[in-house]
Amino acid sequence: MQKIKPRTLSGFMELLPQQQVYFNKMVQRLQQAFSLYGFTPLDLPMMEAAEILLAKGGGETEKQIYTLSKGDTDLALRYEHTTSLAKYVALNYSKLTFPFRRYEIGKVYRGERAQRGRFREFYQADIDIIGDGGLDVLNEAEIPSVIYRCFKSLGLERFIIRINNRKVLSGFFEVIGVGGQATDVMRVVDKLDKIGAEKMAEMLKKDLGLSDRQVEEIVGYVTFEGDPFDIIDQYKGENELFDEGAQELHTISKHIAGLGVPHTHVKIDLAIARGLDYYTGTVYETYLTDHPEVGAICAGGRYDNLAGCFTDRSMPGVGVAIGLTRLFYILQEQELLNEAVLTSPADVLIIPMTEEISHAVTLATNMREAGLRTQIYGENKKFKVKVSYADKLAIPYVVFLGEDEISSGQLTVKDMASGEQTTASPRALITLISEKIKPLRMGDPIKEK
Amino acid sequence: MQKIKPRTLSGFMELLPQQQVYFNKMVQRLQQAFSLYGFTPLDLPMMEAAEILLAKGGGETEKQIYTLSKGDTDLALRYEHTTSLAKYVALNYSKLTFPFRRYEIGKVYRGERAQRGRFREFYQADIDIIGDGGLDVLNEAEIPSVIYRCFKSLGLERFIIRINNRKVLSGFFEVIGVGGQATDVMRVVDKLDKIGAEKMAEMLKKDLGLSDRQVEEIVGYVTFEGDPFDIIDQYKGENELFDEGAQELHTISKHIAGLGVPHTHVKIDLAIARGLDYYTGTVYETYLTDHPEVGAICAGGRYDNLAGCFTDRSMPGVGVAIGLTRLFYILQEQELLNEAVLTSPADVLIIPMTEEISHAVTLATNMREAGLRTQIYGENKKFKVKVSYADKLAIPYVVFLGEDEISSGQLTVKDMASGEQTTASPRALITLISEKIKPLRMGDPIKEK
Repeated sequence: MQKIKPRTLSGFMELLPQQQVYFNKMVQRLQQAFSLYGFTPLDLPMMEAAEILLAKGGGETEKQIYTLSKGDTDLALRYEHTTSLAKYVALNYSKLTFPFRRYEIGKVYRGERAQRGRFREFYQADIDIIGDGGLDVLNEAEIPSVIYRCFKSLGLERFIIRINNRKVLSGFFEVIGVGGQATDVMRVVDKLDKIGAEKMAEMLKKDLGLSDRQVEEIVGYVTFEGDPFDIIDQYKGENELFDEGAQELHTISKHIAGLGVPHTHVKIDLAIARGLDYYTGTVYETYLTDHPEVGAICAGGRYDNLAGCFTDRSMPGVGVAIGLTRLFYILQEQELLNEAVLTSPADVLIIPMTEEISHAVTLATNMREAGLRTQIYGENKKFKVKVSYADKLAIPYVVFLGEDEISSGQLTVKDMASGEQTTASPRALITLISEKIKPLRMGDPIKEK
Repeated sequence: MQKIKPRTLSGFMELLPQQQVYFNKMVQRLQQAFSLYGFTPLDLPMMEAAEILLAKGGGETEKQIYTLSKGDTDLALRYEHTTSLAKYVALNYSKLTFPFRRYEIGKVYRGERAQRGRFREFYQADIDIIGDGGLDVLNEAEIPSVIYRCFKSLGLERFIIRINNRKVLSGFFEVIGVGGQATDVMRVVDKLDKIGAEKMAEMLKKDLGLSDRQVEEIVGYVTFEGDPFDIIDQYKGENELFDEGAQELHTISKHIAGLGVPHTHVKIDLAIARGLDYYTGTVYETYLTDHPEVGAICAGGRYDNLAGCFTDRSMPGVGVAIGLTRLFYILQEQELLNEAVLTSPADVLIIPMTEEISHAVTLATNMREAGLRTQIYGENKKFKVKVSYADKLAIPYVVFLGEDEISSGQLTVKDMASGEQTTASPRALITLISEKIKPLRMGDPIKEK
């Protein structure tokens, strides 16, 4: 038979079993964190009619969308979660209760040029709160709390959530007389982190033709180092949009501590704009303190109209997305996966030392009933091979079941990490292993050094 | 702005939030059950190079595969899990430890004609045990135990696992002199359930030209009602393949009870063949007792060569697959989803009755810290609307937080099901709700009537 060379498509992450355990644990932690804030899980189709996914239309993203046809239908694979959510909410409007909080952790597809650390199939973990006609700013205040809990629950400590408000930024531009060029100015300001203040000032002046005074005001504003409300207050009362945004930032800032987010992990950053058109109020970007080069690992904001392509209803919302596959890739590259996490497929391996294996089978069944993940090694191999099976898979406990153990009813379990052996009755042994396994199951997937 | 009519592709299951909770709970229960037997989770790409997925080639399945291209690569969406697994095992052979037990619960794609209860995107939950050069029959004996635990843990009671062995069936055909036509005979015998013994006999005789004697033997054998080993013993010693298979059936049968499967839920069924080419030993089919018309809800068997398209290594295995989307569809149609399951997105809704919501925010944070899924209703709506939010989402507990509660430090929680109100300190309240929520979280997703 002619063989086909096995390969995995470039840009598609395929994990080994141990890595998969970490990845799944990260997903579980995010699910738990999202649930604590009343987000309900959704799992929408990966594929939609092309007209649905292309509804928003336009630009680079469209080129990256995987399209296909089957029969006479043009299909497309989702490239993010928002468009499918907009369709879902428009389609099921009468069956949903608003504000509607949902999370979705699922794969999306982008035919990007394959690059190290860039993926064509990747998980995005999204949360959104969708209002019907309106949505209180309290929802915006809760988002940093969700983000904080997410990353903490993964085991991360060194990250910072940056918050700004598009109304404040737009209002500020109006106040200093660059409102007509707001989009262009925002595009330049958005580069501050990458290019620095000097280069930004130069671009504002030369490329956009701003006056020295305007450039000075912008630089002073977006690089302000003190309490951001000090500088915000300086511009208050001159522009309605600015004041509205400033009030929202105040409200959010006020609740940050009450929502359990320490001030060390959140920063009002007057420079961030987060894209150009979509967001209309609060915007969020989260960075790893030690890896700013990675960019935002979680980002999003407030938008005024989720489902404008599909319905006339006004559906404002707020949401953020975590690029989970990329985050996992980075954490793994940085060797931040927690080595104390139990990645073995089983808690116990039973190695029968007799031809007759009924006792091993019964023991395995009792262990499984007690919630222990149990394997019986049933292959006819040398003793060394049997033990090395447990070793290679890092199975923490091995029970050897020979004639002596069967006749005495006293079993011996070996702790594979310490080499320590304990002898006890089957019931006592199950209790013992269960107790010892518990802490191994609790470990966070990530451990910073 | 021109609106696009929101729609979901036919054959793609899209669940409402409450349904999604049931579906996810089913997935969780399967994950737990698989884990108890030492299966490790995998989550392989949904897409592969077309040559990989088409490697096995041929027939109806190939027509149903979704293909697409991007750049100069021909791609295909997976239509089941086995081919991707074969590729994975061949590609990562040196990094895996054998026998390799993995489960995968994920979406697969088939461009079938859309039909009620037939899906184009659906979840398959697969387990497989892959050996390296050999695989002990004990692994085959464990499969019914996994299946039993899976369905029991979903809440199902009325199902039966049917087991046969392809060696026994093929051997039997050889013994009675129809070995040369084994595939054709098997195809007819496979229809026994649907067409009955009489029609089967007619087809064997007229279509395949079998003798009266041969037909009689087949009918007697496949419809045998007593202990199957009674009739198996009658044919023993005449054919090596038959005897080998009979021995395997004996071994499996012997361990069934020890592996925790009651004899009420398993049946040696000498008629099932389970497809024509792939399986080489034990085969399994599981049926819902009350819904035989649905067909097998879980099926699989022993195969001798998983990755023959990709490698020369001999990799025998055994596995079964559950068509989860279809199973969910049926259970829902039959109204078997357990109404006692908590489907609300939150355990508690806090309704602030004052302008100043800091107390509500702090309370929510404390509740979340204690593991309670908590929402604050922050919208500026009438009291009735706020309460109806909890009602519609079936949130079981509501805390009203007004001036009196804040000043006295005594909070009131309303049990939305009973209408009962309890007043206590915040800490006592959190303990109270946590205790009451526990049993609501334990419920099985399915409850038979």
